[in-house]
Amino acid sequence: MIKEGDNIILISERLNRWLVKVQSGKEFQTHKGIIKFDEIIGKDYGFILESSIGKKFYVLEPLIYDYIFKSKRSTQIIYPKDAAIITLFSGIHPGSRIIETGLGSGALTIALANIIRPNGKIYSYEIKEDYISVAKKNLDRAGLSEFVEIKHRDALNGFDETNVDNIILDLATPWLIIPIAYKALKSSGVLLSYSPTIDQVQKTVNSMIENNFVDIHTMECLIREWQIAPNKVRPFNRMVGHSGFMTFGTKIHVA
Amino acid sequence: MIKEGDNIILISERLNRWLVKVQSGKEFQTHKGIIKFDEIIGKDYGFILESSIGKKFYVLEPLIYDYIFKSKRSTQIIYPKDAAIITLFSGIHPGSRIIETGLGSGALTIALANIIRPNGKIYSYEIKEDYISVAKKNLDRAGLSEFVEIKHRDALNGFDETNVDNIILDLATPWLIIPIAYKALKSSGVLLSYSPTIDQVQKTVNSMIENNFVDIHTMECLIREWQIAPNKVRPFNRMVGHSGFMTFGTKIHVA
Amino acid sequence: MIKEGDNIILISERLNRWLVKVQSGKEFQTHKGIIKFDEIIGKDYGFILESSIGKKFYVLEPLIYDYIFKSKRSTQIIYPKDAAIITLFSGIHPGSRIIETGLGSGALTIALANIIRPNGKIYSYEIKEDYISVAKKNLDRAGLSEFVEIKHRDALNGFDETNVDNIILDLATPWLIIPIAYKALKSSGVLLSYSPTIDQVQKTVNSMIENNFVDIHTMECLIREWQIAPNKVRPFNRMVGHSGFMTFGTKIHVA
Amino acid sequence: MIKEGDNIILISERLNRWLVKVQSGKEFQTHKGIIKFDEIIGKDYGFILESSIGKKFYVLEPLIYDYIFKSKRSTQIIYPKDAAIITLFSGIHPGSRIIETGLGSGALTIALANIIRPNGKIYSYEIKEDYISVAKKNLDRAGLSEFVEIKHRDALNGFDETNVDNIILDLATPWLIIPIAYKALKSSGVLLSYSPTIDQVQKTVNSMIENNFVDIHTMECLIREWQIAPNKVRPFNRMVGHSGFMTFGTKIHVA
Repeated sequence: MIKEGDNIILISERLNRWLVKVQSGKEFQTHKGIIKFDEIIGKDYGFILESSIGKKFYVLEPLIYDYIFKSKRSTQIIYPKDAAIITLFSGIHPGSRIIETGLGSGALTIALANIIRPNGKIYSYEIKEDYISVAKKNLDRAGLSEFVEIKHRDALNGFDETNVDNIILDLATPWLIIPIAYKALKSSGVLLSYSPTIDQVQKTVNSMIENNFVDIHTMECLIREWQIAPNKVRPFNRMVGHSGFMTFGTKIHVA
Repeated sequence: MIKEGDNIILISERLNRWLVKVQSGKEFQTHKGIIKFDEIIGKDYGFILESSIGKKFYVLEPLIYDYIFKSKRSTQIIYPKDAAIITLFSGIHPGSRIIETGLGSGALTIALANIIRPNGKIYSYEIKEDYISVAKKNLDRAGLSEFVEIKHRDALNGFDETNVDNIILDLATPWLIIPIAYKALKSSGVLLSYSPTIDQVQKTVNSMIENNFVDIHTMECLIREWQIAPNKVRPFNRMVGHSGFMTFGTKIHVA
Repeated sequence: MIKEGDNIILISERLNRWLVKVQSGKEFQTHKGIIKFDEIIGKDYGFILESSIGKKFYVLEPLIYDYIFKSKRSTQIIYPKDAAIITLFSGIHPGSRIIETGLGSGALTIALANIIRPNGKIYSYEIKEDYISVAKKNLDRAGLSEFVEIKHRDALNGFDETNVDNIILDLATPWLIIPIAYKALKSSGVLLSYSPTIDQVQKTVNSMIENNFVDIHTMECLIREWQIAPNKVRPFNRMVGHSGFMTFGTKIHVA
Repeated sequence: MIKEGDNIILISERLNRWLVKVQSGKEFQTHKGIIKFDEIIGKDYGFILESSIGKKFYVLEPLIYDYIFKSKRSTQIIYPKDAAIITLFSGIHPGSRIIETGLGSGALTIALANIIRPNGKIYSYEIKEDYISVAKKNLDRAGLSEFVEIKHRDALNGFDETNVDNIILDLATPWLIIPIAYKALKSSGVLLSYSPTIDQVQKTVNSMIENNFVDIHTMECLIREWQIAPNKVRPFNRMVGHSGFMTFGTKIHVA
């Protein structure tokens, strides 16, 4: 049952999609009419609501996808497709202890925190204070703050944690962090580096090889969306052609 | 510390990859020499071992990726990339209660069970007894059997569970199951159907529209792997061009 | 040497691209200043020109790519990538005699006429008079009109030509034309059908099988463009995810 | 009418594809029976033939695609998809004068020669004598030798031709040739460089920028093939994930 303060997803017939917080006595304005929150409170997620001008809206429970995609942005946020691939190919699971740097807008952090809860932990290092402030709001809204410990620190100065299961690098110069990451990561633990350019990938792979990472592989993920309508079955015209390269490697212990 | 009965990943320098069980006093044969398990027991994951002929092997802890990819096959198994996309875009998380049909070789089940533990549950319906037998072994090996309840039953006869968070369809005729799935799924819950052909997608989407599913979208996921070697940075020549289409939809409650 | 009435390509530093006709005494307005055609006449293609406000422009000779891409549009025009694939995989060459229907905006016609000249011919059937009018202008501008014979006729009423080397179908219901195309095509000649939806492809392939076409294959072409800048080597963010499916088949003679 | 010495394409029901020369009194052996050439001579292309064991074969006229794809290989040959894109995006047309280096197996040369005939010319530079020998046979078979002048020379020593319409580079170190190519190319002419690795692309683009090439763009072409069978409409499982990057640039004249 939807309560005051809960988040909802509103979808219009034109497939506009909003993530909004239910506030009793208040309204939400759209170009397809006004939504009164009082008509939502007390109902179960998954119903059809009419706006003030009679337009249909779906009221749904937000998914982790929505919290990622609708993150307030201080910087470029991760695509949910990449968060999905990173999570599975890094072997992240409930209970994982993970170092992440940088925090950015916290979008990838949301995806990670969603999986490692309730017993895991994300230790997230970020140097920019304004990023932290935005990310905290995003994590709060997703209800995941308790699983994330944010550190206002430069990763170059070292990590406090040791023996973590995974290290997730999403910053401009990942190759500089590799030796530091090696120390903090457990043996056989997986490091993931996410970078938009192939130059960054090359430098990072070189540093991983030098620093005793093995089973290094780099991939990118492309999603193609389809229109499935009567007599009109086809991929959509436009697609995301590139977001980032994902490079995975595993720490090997050397005597 | 690796113990008798643990699973390990062995990787040769040529990047062959095996998932094997450690058995004291026994050996594992490769074309690059023999591996003696007694040289592994008692060590920590993440070290370099030499075979009987002096070839290097990496001894790593298996990831969920490995349990999916190395599943024994009674039928076509899901690609890890698709399992990743399905999990995130369906909003699956620790604690989710999920109906899946069919079980098949249990590869997708492994990916789902890995995320919903320890408090969630997978209810998996499968008509073929030989599939169940293989899938059980795969789940056992991954240590995830306790989170999966397998039912040797035809999904067409209905599901026992109600109000589940997600329904995952991976069978030849998903469109026939949609009305049954609607009843078992919670309002605002997400149904996912995975099919190799576009004909199946069309029929399934039609059935979803007729059965009060909304926010229906179909996508496919392509992974491109890269070689990152000095003066040789390029995508690999061959790639998987197609596995399956993923169709997501959300149940809407109608009075 | 560029003369009055010649076409030129103008490219600004921001990579805007115009196809314009040189007219003595006149000017071309851009948001980066005014270009005076009199400063262009008498020069050779391939030089740098400054606009009235000192911005650099490249003055280049138009390629067939430009005439295709800059076609005036009465309807959706073909992408150059698809025109390229169609031309090669249909076996089109200087001297080919080709039936095309419909003409549309003439963009694909331009690509075909460019290859078959000087001894080949395109016979192009189109029912919409306003399409013909636009296409004629596009063909004139490209200097290719003499190689195209436009017929204001419904292809359903049959083709005048026989024994043509190729038939190119780019219309909404290609499957209706297949029996008619069979008659006009030479034995071992290639038919190509271009359609945006998979429904059209299915119907067309069925009709091709029924009408004695063999070696039928369907493909799509994706182009990925790259940014190659210092420390910024990466695919561009957005790409064209879909234009059309291309189905090729070869006529077999049956007794 | 098929004559002694003509080339034919033979396609079996399993879609095996051969390019063979018709020789009177001789036979062609396949795993689906023997084909007697005497049953082919005097017939028109595009008929169904039965082998000695009653299996059906299609006898078709070879397309330029076949001559490219079935080239004897001294080295990696170009994919027809890339030859198609190179031809159109370079603005190649009947009458073009083109320098190419290296010749390799002559597969790209075949695609180019097919378009520039009858009045154009390909000047092809190759240092390896054994490559030239193979390429000549491929060009002869395609009937295109008269349009190609092969030079057994190192392109680094300079080209004999000037003011050519296009320069096509398909060799290991294209960046070394750029200054030489600039001299031989007409103003506003297009240079194309084809390379498998991104490292080569970077060096080549840098050299192009330094040597007064403009409108530089890099792309790759992916072809996805589809199975269109009743109730089985889907992309094929495997696809070519990468062949080469194509970089285009236009010569600008500087005072």
